[in-house]
Amino acid sequence: MQRKRIIVDCDPGQDDAIALLMALGAPQRIDVLAVTCVAGNVPLRLTEWNARRVVELAGREDVPVHAGCGRPLLRSLRTAEHVHGETGLDGSGLPDPQMPLAGTHAVDAILAMLAAEPEGSVTLCPLGPLTNIALAMVKDPVTFARAKEIVLMGGAMDLGNVTPAAEFNFHVDPHAARIVFEFGLPITMMGLDVTHKVLVTDHRLDAVRAIGNRQAQAAHGMLEFYNRFDRDRERYGSDGAPLHDPCVIAWLLDASIFSGRDCHVGIETDSGSCMGRSVVDWWRSTDVPANAHVVSGVDEDAFFGLLEASLRAFP
Amino acid sequence: MQRKRIIVDCDPGQDDAIALLMALGAPQRIDVLAVTCVAGNVPLRLTEWNARRVVELAGREDVPVHAGCGRPLLRSLRTAEHVHGETGLDGSGLPDPQMPLAGTHAVDAILAMLAAEPEGSVTLCPLGPLTNIALAMVKDPVTFARAKEIVLMGGAMDLGNVTPAAEFNFHVDPHAARIVFEFGLPITMMGLDVTHKVLVTDHRLDAVRAIGNRQAQAAHGMLEFYNRFDRDRERYGSDGAPLHDPCVIAWLLDASIFSGRDCHVGIETDSGSCMGRSVVDWWRSTDVPANAHVVSGVDEDAFFGLLEASLRAFP
Amino acid sequence: MQRKRIIVDCDPGQDDAIALLMALGAPQRIDVLAVTCVAGNVPLRLTEWNARRVVELAGREDVPVHAGCGRPLLRSLRTAEHVHGETGLDGSGLPDPQMPLAGTHAVDAILAMLAAEPEGSVTLCPLGPLTNIALAMVKDPVTFARAKEIVLMGGAMDLGNVTPAAEFNFHVDPHAARIVFEFGLPITMMGLDVTHKVLVTDHRLDAVRAIGNRQAQAAHGMLEFYNRFDRDRERYGSDGAPLHDPCVIAWLLDASIFSGRDCHVGIETDSGSCMGRSVVDWWRSTDVPANAHVVSGVDEDAFFGLLEASLRAFP
Amino acid sequence: MQRKRIIVDCDPGQDDAIALLMALGAPQRIDVLAVTCVAGNVPLRLTEWNARRVVELAGREDVPVHAGCGRPLLRSLRTAEHVHGETGLDGSGLPDPQMPLAGTHAVDAILAMLAAEPEGSVTLCPLGPLTNIALAMVKDPVTFARAKEIVLMGGAMDLGNVTPAAEFNFHVDPHAARIVFEFGLPITMMGLDVTHKVLVTDHRLDAVRAIGNRQAQAAHGMLEFYNRFDRDRERYGSDGAPLHDPCVIAWLLDASIFSGRDCHVGIETDSGSCMGRSVVDWWRSTDVPANAHVVSGVDEDAFFGLLEASLRAFP
Repeated sequence: MQRKRIIVDCDPGQDDAIALLMALGAPQRIDVLAVTCVAGNVPLRLTEWNARRVVELAGREDVPVHAGCGRPLLRSLRTAEHVHGETGLDGSGLPDPQMPLAGTHAVDAILAMLAAEPEGSVTLCPLGPLTNIALAMVKDPVTFARAKEIVLMGGAMDLGNVTPAAEFNFHVDPHAARIVFEFGLPITMMGLDVTHKVLVTDHRLDAVRAIGNRQAQAAHGMLEFYNRFDRDRERYGSDGAPLHDPCVIAWLLDASIFSGRDCHVGIETDSGSCMGRSVVDWWRSTDVPANAHVVSGVDEDAFFGLLEASLRAFP
Repeated sequence: MQRKRIIVDCDPGQDDAIALLMALGAPQRIDVLAVTCVAGNVPLRLTEWNARRVVELAGREDVPVHAGCGRPLLRSLRTAEHVHGETGLDGSGLPDPQMPLAGTHAVDAILAMLAAEPEGSVTLCPLGPLTNIALAMVKDPVTFARAKEIVLMGGAMDLGNVTPAAEFNFHVDPHAARIVFEFGLPITMMGLDVTHKVLVTDHRLDAVRAIGNRQAQAAHGMLEFYNRFDRDRERYGSDGAPLHDPCVIAWLLDASIFSGRDCHVGIETDSGSCMGRSVVDWWRSTDVPANAHVVSGVDEDAFFGLLEASLRAFP
Repeated sequence: MQRKRIIVDCDPGQDDAIALLMALGAPQRIDVLAVTCVAGNVPLRLTEWNARRVVELAGREDVPVHAGCGRPLLRSLRTAEHVHGETGLDGSGLPDPQMPLAGTHAVDAILAMLAAEPEGSVTLCPLGPLTNIALAMVKDPVTFARAKEIVLMGGAMDLGNVTPAAEFNFHVDPHAARIVFEFGLPITMMGLDVTHKVLVTDHRLDAVRAIGNRQAQAAHGMLEFYNRFDRDRERYGSDGAPLHDPCVIAWLLDASIFSGRDCHVGIETDSGSCMGRSVVDWWRSTDVPANAHVVSGVDEDAFFGLLEASLRAFP
Repeated sequence: MQRKRIIVDCDPGQDDAIALLMALGAPQRIDVLAVTCVAGNVPLRLTEWNARRVVELAGREDVPVHAGCGRPLLRSLRTAEHVHGETGLDGSGLPDPQMPLAGTHAVDAILAMLAAEPEGSVTLCPLGPLTNIALAMVKDPVTFARAKEIVLMGGAMDLGNVTPAAEFNFHVDPHAARIVFEFGLPITMMGLDVTHKVLVTDHRLDAVRAIGNRQAQAAHGMLEFYNRFDRDRERYGSDGAPLHDPCVIAWLLDASIFSGRDCHVGIETDSGSCMGRSVVDWWRSTDVPANAHVVSGVDEDAFFGLLEASLRAFP
């Protein structure tokens, strides 16, 4: 089986960090070309700083980390320190990064890699607001069209998490999300419908800690923080916090553990109360052709099996 | 226990008809002051005609039937003959009505009853688009405020049924729905989240037929048609068609079989793709105070017990 | 020449009052069937009270005054006491009315007159927010279609007066305005483009006072108040306050003093910043067929000639 | 007097070409650092090609020409060949360009110049849709904030030219326009309110031809084409086509010939019928602070004096 060549565009965030570890811990399956950062869970200077801390934790300083956009296209930046803590990686216990930030802007780094790699060979994995991705698409649509596909975390068919209508990533930059869904590349969407089924229970926390290496220790610390302070957990009355972003990496490792449907997804940008909603035509109420594969189901235990395997693979 | 005094505002429709029979079959519990009709599932001339057929079937020609608005406030009328058949009551086998239509417009009839009955004593039960109700509110808000409450069928937290975002009744006249939810009376909302749990299975169809009286025979015929031709059933892969409108009457008969939550419901009127969506703040993402009790759960067997009891009560 | 049979739907307001006097002072040309009132410049209880004061001033207690809607369809009522004073008729010096309010709601009165008069014989003259007119259209579109035409004051091609985009009447109830413009009757629109050319200069004020009868005295008092306190005058740096509503009556008396164009007018209801804007396709940028005659030019002196003639006609 | 250092971002278009000649013909007053191109009047490959033709006509191959964005942020590209001809410069008679396109993307070129020049020294002069400018702002807001100001052609207080509500440049990319007006830099807006006062009359056409040099000959050819085929001229019944873009350069040469007002300008992005409208609070209807200087008046003869002086200055 061929290795998947991916660019992870993220805003760490504990769940972004877990996703990065999950990808970097499976180098025989996934080739992380670069990590690009965007403002989202916390401001840009923290997301790129956190990304470097995680890449170093994985011992993969060869993977460049690029800083990108520090603000959404049209809306003011909304962050989520109440979920992730002031640093965005509270609980990780990770030291300051030593590796430098790559010199190129994330938008240009993405376009340069898409130009350099064979056409149709690179998968974009956005885990945060889609500002970098949308800007690259508008700046150079011809080069961007060389990408193979986009597998992203964002959206919701059912209720949103930051508003009654919208999920955080799409709500922070709905205009960017609309640009991405209207661009024409194949999209796999991991929305709240599936990520709210991947819960960090106490039992699973114990299993991560039991792995014992440095990476698992940090992962455990982050998950424990994320779990303990996640407002959603309390609000939803669930058994643990939902592990959003790692679903993207799990899909790349084994899509067979998920279930979903091809359908049309529109992004609402014109309404106050529905701003950023992903309007998913799951029941085919309209005749608009599908532009995304929307994932809604997952074998939860298989997911955690993949996560543990990646963590265990670190020396 | 005091009898509940209600006005049923409807657009029959098989499920409206079942709701009417359910209410008229429980006269010791529910006092139906009038049936008012609106354009919705089929045009107005059919909904008022059907309402009279059903009132006669129940042997209750003493309950006046009023015709109301034949068009939504701002949008063009959208009907649903593909669900209900050309007459709106296909499958019922009911004869033409003999009783006359009441002379007063539904809007005026509603206001006159609210003025005549003791303040806080009348429950409005809208089962179709909310045009009549909204017009009465705008025409004479002081009189309308004498109502006790509104228990209505409409809306959805999860996906819609006529568009990816909206349920039929709210989509047909979203502006009317917004007027109603912003008016200030207590509202109980029976949306798709609960009505899609009340399914007409083959087993239940048999139980209705077994009751044996004329009313049950007609109910069986309508449910069989509704069930057989309901596109939703096929689309959703469910065991039977959802029995939307009767949930309103079941709530009046025994609210304890339902579960729900007080929360804010906004109605989207400014967006193309989300037009008519009920934006339900189920998770309290915002600080906007609750304006409705949103029902999402039901004891399905208890519901059918109530329906059968009403049908059995007819001589 | 046949007398024009009109219903004046208004929210007096000094300029509404002048319009009423202008119509009631020309009985050989205009037959005022009724005056119907709506909330707008001031709340409903004041607009109907003021309408009765003006009808009595004209010695025309035979013309019934009906109260209608006290609130817009969807938006909260916005009034304009800063323009018209606390009573809405400050400066008029008129006594309390003696004539009673007619018993029927304005919406029903309008529909009853349209049903009773010959088809195509009645002109509706809305001078305020269009709530009553829109409600009558939705309540009984078949009867409303018997009207001959609508000649209304509202809208603006150029800048608005209450927001950068919208004129007061359309902004107060934009949804009603949209219902009216989409209904299908012939519409003549007197917007700010023409009414801002009809200015109450000092010279014209003097001419009104010089007429000498009671009606002219009251008119002078109202115009002087309106002129002195009109914020717009100061803001626009013009020579006098614009006399909006009387343009409608002047059009009925002599359309030849105006100039305009048939074009499509849409009413914006979906946008925050453009809410209530009349989108006038003056340059035919689109292919949408015309639904209104939009007036933009006027012979100002001829207008004041008509006004003075009406006032002079009172005994 | 200090030379103004400017970057012209444009989509030539005959009036863009005249603006470029006007700036390049006044080197002692204006230092054109670069010409950056965007899709608008015609597609990007033609706008950059035309920009090079004009720069060569001016004998200024030292001024680099950069290609930028070939599509608006969210909307599909709408071009205007019916105004400008198939090439965008029909009537110019100019040969193919010999000078190469600069290697850098317009967005990066703009940011690099803003980084290299002293803070507060560079004026951005956008003459087309604002896609390049908005992308640069989002990509690197810190660097962009080093600009001195933006003097742009776009918008309208009165009626639009491509829709009843919107002017071409803002309508093509309204989201970009909104980003620009919300960014915080000083903006001078030359909208249709002023540009429709700068008309290419026959008399002025003759004066341009009479100048006699190559540049004036080409200018005359373009203006004659533009004038003859401009639909607007016919539609508006005016004496000549409006010379939109050169107003920006005339402002830099002599702001004293213009008149205007500081006020707030919002850009409508949420409405169908008002999409791209510049909502100008000229009358201070709201309390929102001014974010732009909106120009509405011009000494037309003085304008053409500046244009002729620039053209005459070419050897």
